[in-house]
Amino acid sequence: MAEHHDAVSIIRTKRDGAELSRSQINWVIDSYTRGLVSDEQMSALAMAVLLQGMNRTEISHWTAAMIASGERMNFTTLPKPTVDKHSTGGVGDKITLPLAPLVAACGAAVPQLSGRGLGHTGGTLDKLESIPGWRASLTNAEMFAQLNDVGAVICAAGIGLAPADKKLYALRDVTGTVESIALIASSIMSKKIAEGTSALVLDVKCGAGAFMKNIEDARELAQTMVHLGNDAGVRTSALLTDMDFPLGLTAGNALEVRESVEVLAGGGPSDVVELTVALAEEMLSAAGIDADPAAALADGRAMDVWRRMIAAQGGDPEAPLPIARETEVVRADADGVLTSLDAMSVGIAAWRLGAGRQRQGEQVQAAAGVEWHAQVGDQVKSGEALFTLHTDTEDRIPAALAALGGAWSIGEAAQRRPLIHERIR
Amino acid sequence: MAEHHDAVSIIRTKRDGAELSRSQINWVIDSYTRGLVSDEQMSALAMAVLLQGMNRTEISHWTAAMIASGERMNFTTLPKPTVDKHSTGGVGDKITLPLAPLVAACGAAVPQLSGRGLGHTGGTLDKLESIPGWRASLTNAEMFAQLNDVGAVICAAGIGLAPADKKLYALRDVTGTVESIALIASSIMSKKIAEGTSALVLDVKCGAGAFMKNIEDARELAQTMVHLGNDAGVRTSALLTDMDFPLGLTAGNALEVRESVEVLAGGGPSDVVELTVALAEEMLSAAGIDADPAAALADGRAMDVWRRMIAAQGGDPEAPLPIARETEVVRADADGVLTSLDAMSVGIAAWRLGAGRQRQGEQVQAAAGVEWHAQVGDQVKSGEALFTLHTDTEDRIPAALAALGGAWSIGEAAQRRPLIHERIR
Repeated sequence: MAEHHDAVSIIRTKRDGAELSRSQINWVIDSYTRGLVSDEQMSALAMAVLLQGMNRTEISHWTAAMIASGERMNFTTLPKPTVDKHSTGGVGDKITLPLAPLVAACGAAVPQLSGRGLGHTGGTLDKLESIPGWRASLTNAEMFAQLNDVGAVICAAGIGLAPADKKLYALRDVTGTVESIALIASSIMSKKIAEGTSALVLDVKCGAGAFMKNIEDARELAQTMVHLGNDAGVRTSALLTDMDFPLGLTAGNALEVRESVEVLAGGGPSDVVELTVALAEEMLSAAGIDADPAAALADGRAMDVWRRMIAAQGGDPEAPLPIARETEVVRADADGVLTSLDAMSVGIAAWRLGAGRQRQGEQVQAAAGVEWHAQVGDQVKSGEALFTLHTDTEDRIPAALAALGGAWSIGEAAQRRPLIHERIR
Repeated sequence: MAEHHDAVSIIRTKRDGAELSRSQINWVIDSYTRGLVSDEQMSALAMAVLLQGMNRTEISHWTAAMIASGERMNFTTLPKPTVDKHSTGGVGDKITLPLAPLVAACGAAVPQLSGRGLGHTGGTLDKLESIPGWRASLTNAEMFAQLNDVGAVICAAGIGLAPADKKLYALRDVTGTVESIALIASSIMSKKIAEGTSALVLDVKCGAGAFMKNIEDARELAQTMVHLGNDAGVRTSALLTDMDFPLGLTAGNALEVRESVEVLAGGGPSDVVELTVALAEEMLSAAGIDADPAAALADGRAMDVWRRMIAAQGGDPEAPLPIARETEVVRADADGVLTSLDAMSVGIAAWRLGAGRQRQGEQVQAAAGVEWHAQVGDQVKSGEALFTLHTDTEDRIPAALAALGGAWSIGEAAQRRPLIHERIR
């Protein structure tokens, strides 16, 4: 017989610091999904969870309840092992774009369900939609066929996957309850487990431009998610990677596609290449495949998969990418070494130029964004171009310049932390 | 120029344990009243306030903002000093009924705005509505005239008084955010200050049947409210009184009116008389009136005011009170002394018999409730009636009996705490 529950008792249990039972968690997530627990009740519960925390058992039940709120995909009939990657989000983080075809080129199937951007970090689907013709929506059957034929698919998550998470995510965004390790971990992992991948690598960012500002929080989030994944039968590991400075040399939609194609062509910024190869190695290891991703990048096999992946979703991989109507150059004001470049400020500048959206459903500008012509540690010369701002709407430039003011400094020598801090299994 | 605020920043400020500024508090209360801050946002903020607390300055600003959300009454043109009482609520707490006419009989004006009951404690208006013809709603002009002529009025608070509090109170009830000293204090005091009384005595209950289970919490709540009142120019003091056991010998609407009339006639249970006189002394002292309330009770002056007060609001003070269709007697199962009687259980039994409501707007039964024929410390004999249950609906009796099972015990000797613990000014 089902136990009797009510929302207020469950909120009070967590508010007073006690552990929620599996039955309480199942009831509240199911009732919230069906509209029987109200948004204001879930909002109070989310704040209580944020401030009182949940233990591993509670987080595991919470995640399972969110998975159970919707459908669960299954790729076990594919002839290849499936492996996916998730990044907690950073500025200039276009790694998914070269990574998915690279891992597919090495023999795995990569079912990458992605989202659109909100706020200062861009969304993978927004980036790919700057490619003429490319479409993000696939049916489950199309996704399965593309995984079988091409090996990699990057597409929008269907509405049937973890609907409880979708509802709760939108609520957390407006109620100041985003920054909870328990809620972040269960949100990410419910989607990834429901997605049906058999292995998963997490790229957990830490630093000034990431959700997790310090390594301790990032480690706790990574350990929580690795535990959740392995518990649910998904071979899961994580890399803790640096997000003090933005990745690569671009932030923006078409700008990041261009940089990704440079990486697939064997060039591109060294940090983007390093992280792409490291994540590919981790993913292939999780998938039980013995292959050398650096070779697959160098010999063009990854680029071949990229072209087929884009074409399979209606995109023209040879078409020129959109170019912004307006550009503005910011020049170095001294000779020396670039000693800092604030990831958050760069992200906000790109967002203000039109690369991101302020509200769900807004259009983004494909060509808008920020290029920086030096990374931290590089020599710069007074008068040389340091940034190029791209936008279709000239009147957005002053706000972007304001975001970049004070975001960088030139000095005598720079110290960079390593890009990859730790590996967590 | 007004500062720019947004709900999420304010929620995060409190969530992270920082102090809210006056400007943030004014903005969020005003915006919530006008529907620009959503229920889910206010609910997250209420939970953050409950868990992180507010300091005296914040509570004072919060209270002022709730007062500013509506109208403020003014009785300064009355020829008599005004003084009011507020109780934080307990089982069998009918003190307002004899107290208001008693204090008026001693020369003060008592503008008692009251509420209806929700949950296990009864509402003063529900009790008075068991008197045939009596009506709770008065216009401000009728209230003023009655205060001038009779000296006491007990009526429903108009919708114009502290509308922010009304909205927030309903929200807290469904989101597990009732038990916050900051929110309880500001809710009570915003209504009482807006009501326009020039002096106020608080009866802060502590014990098993009260919101505040221990004396430390009750003292903090009392001190917070006394501070808020005096800061706003209302001479405020508080008595901390005991609520381990229910007050008097009845819980229910007509049952409590009957007991109150007994007190006004010079009889009634000694604890009800003691607390009525103590609160009257405190109120008269706050109003600057030198009078002897025990004498006014004994010589019938308080009863005269009661009759005029009831009649002025359409009630017939001589009409027989409603009698329940069904009664059920619970008998003592041993000889000895009644050593405990759980206030909460008695309240729940009365509520289940029909004396209270489960949802706002529900009808209550005028005659329903519980009588107990012995108080803790009294001798009882096996087979003697210990409780009489009253209801119009026979099928409610088993649930009420279940609430009373285990709520009392008979032993050799009982220890009672004093009824009045402390006085706080």
